[in-house]
Amino acid sequence: MEIKEYIEKNKERFFEELFEVLRIPSVSSDPEHKDDMRRCAKKLAEMVKAAGADKVEICETAGNPVVYAEKKVDPKLPTVLVYGHYDVQPAEPLDLWKTDPYEPVIKDGAIWGRGANDDKGQSFMHIKAFEYLVKEKKLRHNIKFLLEGEEEIGSPSLGPWIKANKRKLACDTILISDTTQKAEDVPSICTGMRGMTYMEVTVRGPKMDVHYGHYGGAIYNPIQALCDMISSLIDKDGRVTVKGFYDDVEELSRKDRKMLGQVPFSEEEFKAGVGINGVKGEKGYTTSERTSIRPCLDVNGIWGGHYTQGSKTIIASEAHAKISMRLVPYQDSEKITKLFAKHFKAITPKGVTSEVKFCHGGECFVTPLASKEYAAAAKAMKEVYGMDPMPYRGGGSITVIATAQKVLKATPTLLGFGLERDLIHSPNESYLLKQFYRGIETIVGFYKYY
Amino acid sequence: MEIKEYIEKNKERFFEELFEVLRIPSVSSDPEHKDDMRRCAKKLAEMVKAAGADKVEICETAGNPVVYAEKKVDPKLPTVLVYGHYDVQPAEPLDLWKTDPYEPVIKDGAIWGRGANDDKGQSFMHIKAFEYLVKEKKLRHNIKFLLEGEEEIGSPSLGPWIKANKRKLACDTILISDTTQKAEDVPSICTGMRGMTYMEVTVRGPKMDVHYGHYGGAIYNPIQALCDMISSLIDKDGRVTVKGFYDDVEELSRKDRKMLGQVPFSEEEFKAGVGINGVKGEKGYTTSERTSIRPCLDVNGIWGGHYTQGSKTIIASEAHAKISMRLVPYQDSEKITKLFAKHFKAITPKGVTSEVKFCHGGECFVTPLASKEYAAAAKAMKEVYGMDPMPYRGGGSITVIATAQKVLKATPTLLGFGLERDLIHSPNESYLLKQFYRGIETIVGFYKYY
Repeated sequence: MEIKEYIEKNKERFFEELFEVLRIPSVSSDPEHKDDMRRCAKKLAEMVKAAGADKVEICETAGNPVVYAEKKVDPKLPTVLVYGHYDVQPAEPLDLWKTDPYEPVIKDGAIWGRGANDDKGQSFMHIKAFEYLVKEKKLRHNIKFLLEGEEEIGSPSLGPWIKANKRKLACDTILISDTTQKAEDVPSICTGMRGMTYMEVTVRGPKMDVHYGHYGGAIYNPIQALCDMISSLIDKDGRVTVKGFYDDVEELSRKDRKMLGQVPFSEEEFKAGVGINGVKGEKGYTTSERTSIRPCLDVNGIWGGHYTQGSKTIIASEAHAKISMRLVPYQDSEKITKLFAKHFKAITPKGVTSEVKFCHGGECFVTPLASKEYAAAAKAMKEVYGMDPMPYRGGGSITVIATAQKVLKATPTLLGFGLERDLIHSPNESYLLKQFYRGIETIVGFYKYY
Repeated sequence: MEIKEYIEKNKERFFEELFEVLRIPSVSSDPEHKDDMRRCAKKLAEMVKAAGADKVEICETAGNPVVYAEKKVDPKLPTVLVYGHYDVQPAEPLDLWKTDPYEPVIKDGAIWGRGANDDKGQSFMHIKAFEYLVKEKKLRHNIKFLLEGEEEIGSPSLGPWIKANKRKLACDTILISDTTQKAEDVPSICTGMRGMTYMEVTVRGPKMDVHYGHYGGAIYNPIQALCDMISSLIDKDGRVTVKGFYDDVEELSRKDRKMLGQVPFSEEEFKAGVGINGVKGEKGYTTSERTSIRPCLDVNGIWGGHYTQGSKTIIASEAHAKISMRLVPYQDSEKITKLFAKHFKAITPKGVTSEVKFCHGGECFVTPLASKEYAAAAKAMKEVYGMDPMPYRGGGSITVIATAQKVLKATPTLLGFGLERDLIHSPNESYLLKQFYRGIETIVGFYKYY
C-alpha cells in the first residue's frame, strides 16, 4: 500500500491518538505540570511501541524524562535518529483562545490546540511514518527516537544526557520536524537555526519601595534606569550595542544571501499578519535576513513597581526584565552571555545597582547544502510537492541540535511542515491537515532516498 | 488640667481606640475592601461623637463615604475645618513587614502598622485634642471634621462633594496633619505641596504575542518601544522633555530658595536612608529642592510580556506603564495631563501604537507665610519644641487641599508630625509616640493662638 492510501485509511485513528497527547498540558516551564510531563512521556512511549519499536525506554534525566526507542534492522544500514519534543509553551493568555487549548478540535481544515504543531503534531508524523514502514515491511534503516520534554525551556537536561548516552544514540543523521515552511505550497527546507542566550536582569534602587512624593525627582528610579539601559542596548541603526556582539558573526557572501533570499516573502503580508504599521531592524538587511542570518536582542518580559489595579504612588525598589539574544554562526552562546553580563554591568548608572542571571542558552547550527541528507530531503519533498524545495535559515532555536550534532557527529536534517499561520507559542495554535499529511508522506520519501 | 497631663492619664485608652481603627484594612485602591472602608468610617464617626461633636454624619459620595462632624460654639468665633483621611495605601509586599500591618503594636517607642502615621494616626491626634478641649471646657472655636476615604487614590469624589456642600463646610482655615517634619527635634511646618497627574500608558505592537525566534530582529518590540519612549522623557540634565512642561513653573527667587533651604537636610543621611549610592535629578537644584519646589516625572509601575516564572520566548503584543508627574505652582494639572498625552503620542515610533489613559490628578497649593494661620501654628510649635519652626515645601500631594482652598476660600494650615523614618506607603510603617504626643499638644496650642 502506498503511504497516501495508508493515511487515508487510518487518519481517524491518527487523530484519536494525537488528541490523546494534545490533551495533556505538558508545560515544561511550569513546575505545577511535573506530573503531566511524565504522563505525556508515558503515552508517547506506548505509541512508539505500538508503531513497531523493539525497545522503548522512559529515561530519567536531571529534569523531565526522555522517551527513547529503537528498531534495529541491520547494522550495515544507515541509522536515523528522530528527534522531537513533547513539552509545550504555556497557553496563557487563556482568554484569547477561541477553543480550549487542551481540548483539540478539527475545524477549517486544521487541528487546533496547544502543541497541535509545536511539536506534538510534528513529532507524531514520524511515529506514523515509522508505523507505516514497519507494517508494510519497507523499513531499510535502523531507527531511533529521542523525544524530550524540555525544549521550550532550552533543553537544560538533554545536553548532558546525550553526552552520557553517546553510544546508545549513535546515528548518521538527526531527523527533526519542528520548523516551518515559508509558504503553503512552496516547499522549503530549513538549513540552519539561530542560537540563543536568555537572561533575567534586575536593577535595584532604594532598598524598599518609597513614597513617590517624598523622593520623586531626587533619586534614580530603578524602572527609569532599566528603561534607559534597555533603550541603550540597540542603537539607531538597529544594531545591538553589547561590546563585541558582532565579532564572530558570519558575514554571508552576496551569492549566499541571494540563494537564501529565494524563498517567497512579502513584507506587506508579514506586517498584515501581525498587524503592525512598520518593520524595524538592523540597517542594511531585509526583514527575512533580520530573522534568519542576523542576530538580535529582545526584551521578552518586563516588570517592576505597581502593576496591578489602582494607582500606587511609589518609586519601586526593583525593576526586572527578561532579555534574550538570538545568535547566528559563529557566535558562541557562552561567550555572548559573558559579554552581555559585562556590558550590562558597565552601563549600570550611579544611583542603582544591577544583577544579571543567566537562564539558558544554546548554539546555532547549519546543515550543509552539499550533504546527502539535504539531497534526500530535497528529493522527497520534490516528489510530494512537484517542485524543488528552497533552502532557508530559520530564526528560532532548537538549542539541542547543535549539541547533538557536535557530540554524535551526525548531520541534522530538518523536515518541518509548520506554517506562519499556525501561531505556535501564541493563543490559537493550529496545524493544517494538508501539511500534516504531506509531512508523513515526505518523511516516508526521505527514508526511500536516504 | 494641662494637655500634657491629660495625655499621660489617658494614653492607654488612646492606643486602644487608635488600634481599633488601624486594624481595619481600609485600602481605597482595592475594590475588595469596599466594606472595610465603610466599617472604618463608622468607627471614626463613633469616636468623634464620643469626643464631643454635636452632630456626626456619614455622608455618601460617588465613592467611599465622608465622615462629617461639627461642634458649634459661637458663630462669631473662627471656624476650623479639620481634614484627615481614613484610607491607607496597600500593605503589599507583605513578606517585608516585620509585624502584621493590620495588627498594630507598640515597640521601640513607636506605633507600627499600616496607617499608624498616614493618616489614621495623625487624624486621630485631632480627635483627641478636640476631646480635651471639650472635656476641659476650653473650646473657643467652632470645629468641623471632614475625614475622607479616597486620599490615597487622589480624592476623586471629594472635590465634587465639597463643591456640593460649600455652606456646610464654611470655615476660616483647613487644619491638616498629613505631612512630615524635617527632623525629629527640629520643628518645621509644611507651607505647600506638589500637585500631581497620574496616567497609564499602553504601547501596542503585534496584534498577538509572537514567537521571538520568528520575529526577533524584524519588528519593533513594544517593550523596547516603551523603554525607548520612557527613556526619552527625561533628558541628560534630569529635565522632563514633555513639551511645555516647565512653561508655568514658579521660578523662586534666590531669597525664597534660601529661606526654604533652612530646614536641616543631610544628603548622606538621605542616601543611607534608602540605601542608594547616588542621587539624581534636575540639574541646578539641590536634593531638597528637587523634591519640593521642582516638578518631576516618574514611572510608578511597568509590565509587559512574560513576567512570571520560566522563560517564554515571545515578543509581547503590549507593554504598559503607570507614569505620574509631581507638579508645582503654577502648573495646572489638567493642562499638564493634556501636554503629556500629546507628547507621548508624538514620540510614538512607527511600528507601534500608543494609548494614554488619565487616572487622577490634583493641584498644588501654598500657605502664605504672612497669614495669621501660619503665625498661630508657629507659636504653638515653638511652645512645644522650644524653638521657632522652619517653613518648607512638601514633595507629596494632598490633592484635595487645593480644591478646598479654592472652593471654601480658607487658608490651609498643615501641622504634620510624621518623620522620614516612618516609611509611610512602604512596609513597616510606624509613628513615633513622641511625635504623637507632641502633635496633640501642638494642635491644642494652635487653638490657643488662633
